[in-house]
Amino acid sequence: MREVDIIGVGMTRFGKHLETSFMDLATLPILEAMKDGGIRPAEIEAGFCSYALAGDLHGVITGGQTIFWQAGISRIPIINVENACCSGSSALYLAWTGVASGLYDVALVVGAEKMVVPNFGLLGGGDTELDILEGLVTPASFAMRAQRHMLQYGTTAEQLAQVAVKNRLHAGLNPLSQFREPITVEDVLNAPMIADPLTRLSCCPNADGAAAVILCAGTRAKHYRSDPIRLAASVLRTGSYQNPLDLVPWETDYRTCKAAYEQAGLGPEDLDGAECHDAFTIAEIMHYEAMGLCPAGEGGRLVESGATRLGGRIPVNTSGGLLSKGHPVGATGVAQVVEGVRQLRGEAGERQIPDAKVFLAQCMGGDKDADARTCTVNVLTR
Amino acid sequence: MREVDIIGVGMTRFGKHLETSFMDLATLPILEAMKDGGIRPAEIEAGFCSYALAGDLHGVITGGQTIFWQAGISRIPIINVENACCSGSSALYLAWTGVASGLYDVALVVGAEKMVVPNFGLLGGGDTELDILEGLVTPASFAMRAQRHMLQYGTTAEQLAQVAVKNRLHAGLNPLSQFREPITVEDVLNAPMIADPLTRLSCCPNADGAAAVILCAGTRAKHYRSDPIRLAASVLRTGSYQNPLDLVPWETDYRTCKAAYEQAGLGPEDLDGAECHDAFTIAEIMHYEAMGLCPAGEGGRLVESGATRLGGRIPVNTSGGLLSKGHPVGATGVAQVVEGVRQLRGEAGERQIPDAKVFLAQCMGGDKDADARTCTVNVLTR
Repeated sequence: MREVDIIGVGMTRFGKHLETSFMDLATLPILEAMKDGGIRPAEIEAGFCSYALAGDLHGVITGGQTIFWQAGISRIPIINVENACCSGSSALYLAWTGVASGLYDVALVVGAEKMVVPNFGLLGGGDTELDILEGLVTPASFAMRAQRHMLQYGTTAEQLAQVAVKNRLHAGLNPLSQFREPITVEDVLNAPMIADPLTRLSCCPNADGAAAVILCAGTRAKHYRSDPIRLAASVLRTGSYQNPLDLVPWETDYRTCKAAYEQAGLGPEDLDGAECHDAFTIAEIMHYEAMGLCPAGEGGRLVESGATRLGGRIPVNTSGGLLSKGHPVGATGVAQVVEGVRQLRGEAGERQIPDAKVFLAQCMGGDKDADARTCTVNVLTR
Repeated sequence: MREVDIIGVGMTRFGKHLETSFMDLATLPILEAMKDGGIRPAEIEAGFCSYALAGDLHGVITGGQTIFWQAGISRIPIINVENACCSGSSALYLAWTGVASGLYDVALVVGAEKMVVPNFGLLGGGDTELDILEGLVTPASFAMRAQRHMLQYGTTAEQLAQVAVKNRLHAGLNPLSQFREPITVEDVLNAPMIADPLTRLSCCPNADGAAAVILCAGTRAKHYRSDPIRLAASVLRTGSYQNPLDLVPWETDYRTCKAAYEQAGLGPEDLDGAECHDAFTIAEIMHYEAMGLCPAGEGGRLVESGATRLGGRIPVNTSGGLLSKGHPVGATGVAQVVEGVRQLRGEAGERQIPDAKVFLAQCMGGDKDADARTCTVNVLTR
């Protein structure tokens, strides 16, 4: 497989876009990414588009075809991809496959979602309706995981809350984040309870948003930009969230991170920053452990130490994360990579990680307990 | 890129499956294909799942993860793909990309749809709501194309009807087809008018159904079967349905067929049979021309000559086509390839094309007039 670089990125503000249609919202970051990469529509050889809910919420089919066409891109292979919370990163993985294999030299990935609509809540997901009837909706399944982590490792409600506080602090430095006002541990603990110990501020909000990334064969990338970012690893794995021998860890998460480090020839000690799938505060703590930022069980104490805050040893979710940006499902996995690219280029403004060279973006899809969910990890270097 | 073979296929009956859930229906052909290929679940290295409407109709997300898991397949990359009528063949194209590039040795493709639900009609599609308000629903757009073909080339309503009659004749020989009773040209002409000149029997019916195909690196295929079928070309293109200089042909259709012949190193004269996307009778006639089975404008006279009937020079839609099988959108593109494999293996029973060696499966997605639709062509050889 060939080396693959990222030559252009674009991203809308995440939040409410009541006046913009799904198709128009998704078109904007494509235009921005092409401008960013100094590339013309006719140079894009393949397009990968991700959305998870637009079929259900807006009746969209072949959204990518319309979106790319609106951006002036046509007559190329265009594929629409859905993989729940990993939709965007799955589209990125397919684009990487296409470019790394030599099938295309340049591929564009766009992820988008428009989910701020009346009466919509992403409580269900998956297909086992019985779970939902029983009350095992998404926040409840994460809450159970949190309770187990607290029991097994002594993680505290305050440590969980510190994830939300930290990410909101970062969001205050990111103009594209939906929520930017600082919050305190007390705010989190005193917010309305959703599923004990997770309060409303422990759960990521809905959002509209879109993001785009342009991949290019390493041999051609400098034709477009003097500072391409290397996509040193792109890994997608499916598997269980469960491990009968230890109820806490998501084994797919561990397995995917390990494979990505191997593909990149790097380890957790090499990371300067990371984005991870903090759909709930407990998730970020568990992802710390899977990414190898700390030993299993130490995630709560890691956030408490300040190591994952900007200025700390390994800042995580410098964008504000899903908890502050919001989680427009199809866009999230692409937006994480946009943040990584901006950090490695030194374009992250007030939230810049000094001299960042290696960045990891981790995403996880599916939200219940069936034995078949997805994790993606992308490693970026400069 | 490496050679890619097909080692296993499976397919449900197309029609109403009122007692079977979407997930269960989609699981059945996977089990059949694994049995057919003599391959175990643990040997499948990647999974590609296609459905176009299950998000909208059944709220499905990450369907593939649940479906593959039900079939005993987990811990591998699984991707859900949507590309309207080309959903199944787009999933196949991605699987081909993965195997041809060397990323996987074995990949399984499943396409499924469950669309026989109350009050559902696939009249819309696409995103330009104004078109629908104006009455430019899918059958109308094909009817306009038919009117133009009749005006420009002298194609007759009887010739259009002969497509439906021929495909129903083939369907009578295919136990998996939804409608199997013979019909006459008079039946077609006298059926209720949908959009002049297309009557109800000129339009493909809804259906539930699922189909699966297993791809394997050419170097390993004989490990599983002594008679692997070579996937000699897999091409996906996007582009316009329109050509301002000539309103009849779909230029994407021509361009995709041409690219597939080039990839396979074959031409239309080499074909022993073909499946094409006969969503409406006029579509099959136009696909004849794009596939190079006859010169532009001669499609109506080609069907009238009997050349595309079983026993003719180049039988088309030996399965019964979308017109008789029905069109479970996510399954269609995979089912066409299943038919090709069975023809090339000599397993097509009463509808067998004698000594078939080369088979082409053409599919086309999107149903209106935006400048961004998809065509896929797969060429099979033995």
